[in-house]
Amino acid sequence: MNPSWWRDACQPLDLAAMEQARARQQQLTKPTGSLGQLEALAITLAALQGRERPSLAQVVIAIFAGDHGVVEEGISAYPQAVTGQMLRNFVNGGAAISVLARELGATLEVIDLGTIDPDLDLPGVHHLRLGAGTANFARSTAMTDEQLHAALAAGRASVMRAATQGIQLFIGGEMGIGNTTAAAALASALLTCPAHTLSGPGTGLDSAGVRHKAEVIERSLRLHGVRADQPLQALARVGGFEIAALVGAYLACAQQGIAVLVDGFICSVAALVAVRLNPQCRPWLLFAHQGAEPGHQAVLAALDAEPLLALGLRLGEGSGAALAVPLLRLACALHAQMATFAEAAVADRPT
Amino acid sequence: MNPSWWRDACQPLDLAAMEQARARQQQLTKPTGSLGQLEALAITLAALQGRERPSLAQVVIAIFAGDHGVVEEGISAYPQAVTGQMLRNFVNGGAAISVLARELGATLEVIDLGTIDPDLDLPGVHHLRLGAGTANFARSTAMTDEQLHAALAAGRASVMRAATQGIQLFIGGEMGIGNTTAAAALASALLTCPAHTLSGPGTGLDSAGVRHKAEVIERSLRLHGVRADQPLQALARVGGFEIAALVGAYLACAQQGIAVLVDGFICSVAALVAVRLNPQCRPWLLFAHQGAEPGHQAVLAALDAEPLLALGLRLGEGSGAALAVPLLRLACALHAQMATFAEAAVADRPT
Repeated sequence: MNPSWWRDACQPLDLAAMEQARARQQQLTKPTGSLGQLEALAITLAALQGRERPSLAQVVIAIFAGDHGVVEEGISAYPQAVTGQMLRNFVNGGAAISVLARELGATLEVIDLGTIDPDLDLPGVHHLRLGAGTANFARSTAMTDEQLHAALAAGRASVMRAATQGIQLFIGGEMGIGNTTAAAALASALLTCPAHTLSGPGTGLDSAGVRHKAEVIERSLRLHGVRADQPLQALARVGGFEIAALVGAYLACAQQGIAVLVDGFICSVAALVAVRLNPQCRPWLLFAHQGAEPGHQAVLAALDAEPLLALGLRLGEGSGAALAVPLLRLACALHAQMATFAEAAVADRPT
Repeated sequence: MNPSWWRDACQPLDLAAMEQARARQQQLTKPTGSLGQLEALAITLAALQGRERPSLAQVVIAIFAGDHGVVEEGISAYPQAVTGQMLRNFVNGGAAISVLARELGATLEVIDLGTIDPDLDLPGVHHLRLGAGTANFARSTAMTDEQLHAALAAGRASVMRAATQGIQLFIGGEMGIGNTTAAAALASALLTCPAHTLSGPGTGLDSAGVRHKAEVIERSLRLHGVRADQPLQALARVGGFEIAALVGAYLACAQQGIAVLVDGFICSVAALVAVRLNPQCRPWLLFAHQGAEPGHQAVLAALDAEPLLALGLRLGEGSGAALAVPLLRLACALHAQMATFAEAAVADRPT
């Protein structure tokens, strides 16, 4: 593996399949454009899957978890122990994403990159133990280069496992108390945008808490001198293990030719880092929803993303992406199964 | 049956079940409010179904179709024959709503209230033959009182058939070339809003066509002297058979205690008429999406509706409501199946 594998070429789109799908959409028994975003979605999936009629039976959801040293600055409403407790909840089937994966018939994989409990050992969880969470980036760099490379590789490894299952859609989820702070810091650095415009309540800070969070981020970015044109350095300095794993997973998907459905704010920031590292990956990223965290809209706009849902979600875990899967599947079903004007003997618009 | 049955009382909400559901939502392993609109949706469905954990296995989709005399004013991009042709497509399985009903495991019922072809006889379609479409409301009243009452009753009859199936959610769809013109006329009358602000391209008019459509509506409303405080009269004068049937269906659902998922612009106008006729029905109406037709937003705002989707849809047939069904089902699954903080031994927010 190339040590800078994330810069390797991504798969090209299948433009022939895309044109076939576009032509088919024009012939289906409905006014042109009347299925709105679902028409473009079917055409895009055709280009990504290299077939006129795409399908999304095989979905893998991989949740990446990690703790964040910056929590000691008092930037989260929940205690840090919740990261590990939720890992147990994921594999025991009680978390939102566990319910959604079951209902969708999706495979759920849980990867612990490093939490504050180094002895955590849960059946069904891949424990990678890169460290007891990141270091507090308000004081030092969040992770070492070794940790960064291991986290990127962990995302890639998850995709390579999924690829052996004939996967048609990859969803990355995240869990990590404190990770909206890391995500807002990364977004602030990469978008050269003040932290207070990108900082939100996360799991439930009040307005004073949000102001404090933004101050911690501003101070940390000054400390590290993070630059917009150095995304990998930004990721190491103020990112998180699970965010780096998502970056690696998204890039690996684009290199392997697997469509990605990006979840909420934190995943969208990982997508932004991935696109800055290797812009070729952008067409492989579909965006599920615009969430409630205030920075999400700015990140989506920077990515020129058109999310499918806007339900005021702010849970993470990949849950917003999972909720959008039925829309993608129904877009494929409509595209594949609707009759054409000719087949149904329905008059098209008069010439 | 009371001759003015639509004014009969609607079922009350089950406030005890609603409170149980609200309390349960607070205990599930997620930050409070982090599932956004899906939390309120689960609580509302609990109130409508009278159980702490609602479910939506049994869904009926009834499509009401009718032709519109006002088409002779040149207000549609498609020929009128398409209404009947699409009825065949619905029952043959090739239309968008046919595909969606199949994918959702929903029952699909097709009711022809009256098209321009009085001999139309399709297996699987209920042909009611109230007339060869409505009269051209630019010249005379769209329908007689007998036709109006028959159309309202047809909607109710569809709901009563569905009720025998133990239905948990009713979706009304519509098909009728010209029906965005009738819907815009009704909305203009009931919202006392200029027709040009509510008129859109429908199946595909250009801007000159949209202007002409608005002029036809303004002229017709002056001709009939339709008043905002007389919704039933407005429905007879400038409505359509399928719109009246939807009004009757929505009111019957509220009276029978069946939740409704309202589709796009035309269905939302029918919901507006229903609420004006009997405001008690309002809590039984859930709104699936905000569509592309420009009048839809004004109608949703007047109903204080919070639609779930905004995908730029403008197909009708109940398709937008069908696309939202998986979200409702997943909201129920999350509500019913997620673990509580106590069950999962996850720390809630610190006191």
